[in-house]
Amino acid sequence: MRIAVLGVGLIGGSIGLAARLRADAEVCGYDPDEQVLARALELGAIDESADSVEAAVEGAEAVFVAAPVGALESTVRQALAAAPPGCVVSDVGSTKRLLAAAAADERFVGGHPLAGAETEGVEHAREDLFDGATWYLTPAPERTAGVLYERLHALLRRFGARPVAIDAATHDRMMANVSHLPHVLANLLAAQAAGLFNEPAGEGDAPARLPAVGPSFRDAIRVAGANTAIWTDIYMSNRDALLDAVDEFAGRLTELREALGSADAPRLSAWNDAARSDRDALLGAGLTGESVHELRVPVPNRPGVIAEIALALGQAGVNIVDMALSPSQDNSRGVVALWIGGEHQAAQAEQLIGGLGLPVVRP
Amino acid sequence: MRIAVLGVGLIGGSIGLAARLRADAEVCGYDPDEQVLARALELGAIDESADSVEAAVEGAEAVFVAAPVGALESTVRQALAAAPPGCVVSDVGSTKRLLAAAAADERFVGGHPLAGAETEGVEHAREDLFDGATWYLTPAPERTAGVLYERLHALLRRFGARPVAIDAATHDRMMANVSHLPHVLANLLAAQAAGLFNEPAGEGDAPARLPAVGPSFRDAIRVAGANTAIWTDIYMSNRDALLDAVDEFAGRLTELREALGSADAPRLSAWNDAARSDRDALLGAGLTGESVHELRVPVPNRPGVIAEIALALGQAGVNIVDMALSPSQDNSRGVVALWIGGEHQAAQAEQLIGGLGLPVVRP
Repeated sequence: MRIAVLGVGLIGGSIGLAARLRADAEVCGYDPDEQVLARALELGAIDESADSVEAAVEGAEAVFVAAPVGALESTVRQALAAAPPGCVVSDVGSTKRLLAAAAADERFVGGHPLAGAETEGVEHAREDLFDGATWYLTPAPERTAGVLYERLHALLRRFGARPVAIDAATHDRMMANVSHLPHVLANLLAAQAAGLFNEPAGEGDAPARLPAVGPSFRDAIRVAGANTAIWTDIYMSNRDALLDAVDEFAGRLTELREALGSADAPRLSAWNDAARSDRDALLGAGLTGESVHELRVPVPNRPGVIAEIALALGQAGVNIVDMALSPSQDNSRGVVALWIGGEHQAAQAEQLIGGLGLPVVRP
Repeated sequence: MRIAVLGVGLIGGSIGLAARLRADAEVCGYDPDEQVLARALELGAIDESADSVEAAVEGAEAVFVAAPVGALESTVRQALAAAPPGCVVSDVGSTKRLLAAAAADERFVGGHPLAGAETEGVEHAREDLFDGATWYLTPAPERTAGVLYERLHALLRRFGARPVAIDAATHDRMMANVSHLPHVLANLLAAQAAGLFNEPAGEGDAPARLPAVGPSFRDAIRVAGANTAIWTDIYMSNRDALLDAVDEFAGRLTELREALGSADAPRLSAWNDAARSDRDALLGAGLTGESVHELRVPVPNRPGVIAEIALALGQAGVNIVDMALSPSQDNSRGVVALWIGGEHQAAQAEQLIGGLGLPVVRP
């Protein structure tokens, strides 16, 4: 099978590697940046390089457009114009409706692999980047050719991914709520806190320094100010879904303000209890097939203590789904939160950590 | 010195231990829960138990009220009524204005140690709980007796804490913005996302499951639904500062909505850049004396890989200020974010992790 990859950065490069090494495909790559294209060839992410979209898609059975969000639509149009009749054309953009509307062609199936956001560049491309990753596909029932969808699905399976069909509008609404809105809130919170601490001090001299704060604040602003080029594109391309999410959130904030303003303690308690259930349901789902259990371990924050815990669990085959270390202000100690998949493994972890002489709390 | 501790849970018990073992004090404890009181005695957190506030404070030179926020004011009043003339009375509540107003007595100094929020109960009390911890004190210039403030300050130093005097209103405004508001936002976000995924599916059968989401969402809702009894008290006691913080946040959300609604990409970009600066300034400050550097390491999520990294860094004396492991959906790999204090140690960490054959990215 001949495959074209348009844009050979981290995602495009990884598609190339997976296609070559796992799907026996011949991969032709194109990138507007000649140096990136040459590097992709060097790294074996593509078999050959083309000097135009048209040249790259010639004779291809599948085309992946892995351009930045801002250049996605034009590149997809170009690819569709040049690609052969029986060729499936897909993309990897993080929003899906606009493109689906723009590319009203039976050969087009929108795509969004949930992988690789943390690092960038073809240097980090890996054959196994998509192993086990959800890869959303947004076929249009009224339009998408079944045989082409099937071909794309099978190809993604060979890449190691889990293709999941989803309506483009549902996809964008979901991403607006679980990814784009959290980024917006983190930005706003960072700005608000910074404003607070940058106010001139009472005596008009040095500005107030940020005091010691808890780990909740660090978690809350961790993603603030993520890569501006990428995120401005994302905000712009998912603008209306994000506006809906922002409006819903503003409404919820107003409701909370009412409960707080009227000093309605029972309502605040019920609201907080509901949030706990929601949180548990959300954190438990979608991560592993089973429930995820949280353990908290107060630890001296000396070099090595995390290693001890990780080793004890690792040697027993207990895998840590997620962990977060919250240090005390002077780093003399902290609390490690560990999330373990499955009650059996969580109980095992509890015992093993106890065996190290460390207390374990189930919050 | 004779010290009374009213409420002997985690904080009160730790105060008792520190006072006994580090300040040569004789500690008398009181708790409305007789079992807790007996356990505190057993664990050596107190020298003797009293059956009333009045009995506990008799002859004391310092009194710590470590009752839940809801019972704080009445217990402080009771303690002030019964305590000797030259006795300093303090508390450990997480908001400070209301109490300061209620306890208009030269012997009262409000306090708030930033320690121990993660676990509860006298079982987890430790002599060294306050080592290096900021302990806010809110003396009233027009009222607090200097000699009593000095005694309290010296005592806290012996506990290992860092007493920091702060205006009660500033304290509460700060906590509203960096602790209480983040909890509110996490709750709202969890509720909104849960609402989205609990909607009946199109065909009217099973509800939609939460799909795979990125680590940003996990961070964003991690503190959602924290202990309802504690947090309802906190929200209620810091109500007006939190209302101000909520209103400011709502205003910022409205501004962002305008930029988004008018598709103003340059404004969104500038807003995001500013958030990045704010975040970096906030995360860098208040944690260690020096700048904190973030490293990201894509890793296979096998048991042991965290241990390898932690061991390599630990053996070289490089301390990890904070870390977060973001797993891929099937736990086959993930990205470890590490925060290292100081450029020198960060560079060392980069080299050590590279030596393990793992790529390191500076985001």
